[in-house]
Amino acid sequence: EYVFLANIDPELQLEVLNQVRNPKFVALDTMNFWIEGKLPELKRTLERVDMIVINEGEARALSGESNMVKAAAAIRALGPKFVVIKRGEYGALAFAHDEVFFAPAYPLEDVFDPTGAGDTFAGGLLGNLARWGRTDMKSLRLATVMGCTMASFVVEGFSYDRMHDLDDARIAERLASFRKLVSFDDWDSL
Amino acid sequence: EYVFLANIDPELQLEVLNQVRNPKFVALDTMNFWIEGKLPELKRTLERVDMIVINEGEARALSGESNMVKAAAAIRALGPKFVVIKRGEYGALAFAHDEVFFAPAYPLEDVFDPTGAGDTFAGGLLGNLARWGRTDMKSLRLATVMGCTMASFVVEGFSYDRMHDLDDARIAERLASFRKLVSFDDWDSL
Repeated sequence: EYVFLANIDPELQLEVLNQVRNPKFVALDTMNFWIEGKLPELKRTLERVDMIVINEGEARALSGESNMVKAAAAIRALGPKFVVIKRGEYGALAFAHDEVFFAPAYPLEDVFDPTGAGDTFAGGLLGNLARWGRTDMKSLRLATVMGCTMASFVVEGFSYDRMHDLDDARIAERLASFRKLVSFDDWDSL
Repeated sequence: EYVFLANIDPELQLEVLNQVRNPKFVALDTMNFWIEGKLPELKRTLERVDMIVINEGEARALSGESNMVKAAAAIRALGPKFVVIKRGEYGALAFAHDEVFFAPAYPLEDVFDPTGAGDTFAGGLLGNLARWGRTDMKSLRLATVMGCTMASFVVEGFSYDRMHDLDDARIAERLASFRKLVSFDDWDSL
């Protein structure tokens, strides 16, 4: 029911999507190569998509806007009501339900291999939305942090080696670190 | 009691500091020009400083480390026990008390003039620590967000025009937006 169209030719993405019976929620990744070379095809595919997961440069290229708030609004007008913008070592912005959420990347001391961080982020995000069967803003917030959490693990090892020995306890521990990273108390409580 | 040595020649910064009687907390800003041209003088000044507020490129140049966690550790060894790293439109990282805190920049739709955002950030940060008379981690977290809050206003207008009509209510409202921007609920509450 939850479909992730990874970064391939938008015509193939549409062909894949056409083979899925009654998808509940469809997410798509793309890149500058398709934005520049197959924009009409990409736009046709985007009309069928609920969420787009792209980086800042791609968001600029697709929308023609350098400001991410404006870029997200322009992209929403193309179809996907959920716009998630990856910012590499700076984290991710999620626009949906007239709200914006920001999840930082975890400041790690050793980034061994960043390959696959973006895909792992998308996997953590989509996988958890699918597991919960929910796409409300509350779920999207936590799922975005889960995406950052999984990405923070994958860059610690070569390829996806680091994912093999992960368990729920380690994931929960890293998630707690993310919460602490951005937590601040109220003025009144100082 | 709270001294902010803005970005000038480190020898002058030291001369200014020597004229302050019993400073309680000293913060310093610097730039690549001094890091490259007056490193010994800068290092002498840093020994007398509690907090450094610099951008990522400056942190790399000063520490020789590209990773921000390692850069912060190397800079702490030079003197300042509080290392605050500005990341422009991505926010700021604060390292102190063996903790790390991340405050995002607010995703604004219209950035009119980014001039002075870094200084306004430092003003919001230091000004609030001085007002509260505290430098514990709890205060540093909120003060860093206050720095981002003030910077988010200043970029909305030319020069520091936007600051003239600010009042506590508007600041509190923006602060609440920052809190909402990074808030996510626990897994169990979904």
